Amino acid sequence: MQHEISADHVLFVQDFYPDDFSWCYGCGRLNEHGLQLKTYWNGDETVSVYVPRPEHTAIPGFVYGGLIASLVDCHSTGSASLALYRRDGHELGDPDPVPRCVTASLKVDFVKPTPLGQPITTRGKIIEVGRKKVVVQSEVFVEGVLCARGEVVAVLAPDTMTGGRK
Amino acid sequence: MQHEISADHVLFVQDFYPDDFSWCYGCGRLNEHGLQLKTYWNGDETVSVYVPRPEHTAIPGFVYGGLIASLVDCHSTGSASLALYRRDGHELGDPDPVPRCVTASLKVDFVKPTPLGQPITTRGKIIEVGRKKVVVQSEVFVEGVLCARGEVVAVLAPDTMTGGRK
Repeated sequence: MQHEISADHVLFVQDFYPDDFSWCYGCGRLNEHGLQLKTYWNGDETVSVYVPRPEHTAIPGFVYGGLIASLVDCHSTGSASLALYRRDGHELGDPDPVPRCVTASLKVDFVKPTPLGQPITTRGKIIEVGRKKVVVQSEVFVEGVLCARGEVVAVLAPDTMTGGRK
Repeated sequence: MQHEISADHVLFVQDFYPDDFSWCYGCGRLNEHGLQLKTYWNGDETVSVYVPRPEHTAIPGFVYGGLIASLVDCHSTGSASLALYRRDGHELGDPDPVPRCVTASLKVDFVKPTPLGQPITTRGKIIEVGRKKVVVQSEVFVEGVLCARGEVVAVLAPDTMTGGRK
């Protein structure tokens, strides 16, 4: 595991999304079928750790690319929420609502086959914070070995998706 | 549905992958937990149709981005297999083994939120065919509306993944 912080003290952004926006298959805490990815600040970088299921295979022994893409995607939207919240002077636990972001574009370079069976750690850097847009670059590791690189442009969820709810 | 061809006459590339390489969560016919995406030629374009599960939500009412990325990913590796097989003078049903490709890079632009509940049709164009590499551009539609664009660089599965099996 690449957690540097005891789980006792970590706050995960997905635990602060409003209930209406907590159903995502990738990271919604209320989606019992989903991956329930959890993302936290570790200094200025963001971290998510996910243990793949045996069925998340590509060719046997390796993780299928769609899972890596899903982890990069939800890790990045979570990171974008954290970045916008911090930009506005907040940290998780403050009473103000946490913004909910969605993905405008996703890019993943598969550096090498990702072995299946160990936790997958995604580490993100906030590259750019605009008014409604955040660019996140991520690296995906298994047992310390870089397996993939990602870049996501995340934006605040538009009213067409949220129905104007916040 | 956007099938132009009766399903009775369609051959899907994933049905011709060797058993050892048919466990992918996205498109393996032997992975009972997975998506079992199926890809076929329609003239010079490739097509896959997938009906999302209710849990494949992002914000309620819309498909989560990781599923779109997974569909583009497996649609593209399937398309790459078809393209390499045709380049070598074969069509599905020939006795020669179908090549198995994996993803080197994946890019998805989310054009608009993808509504959840209807079949998702991915249509691919073969942009470039190299010796071991194929570039596939895809468009993702729901009810005829373009929701996402994808570009994948797919390559023949390396021996590090296949153990040298073909």
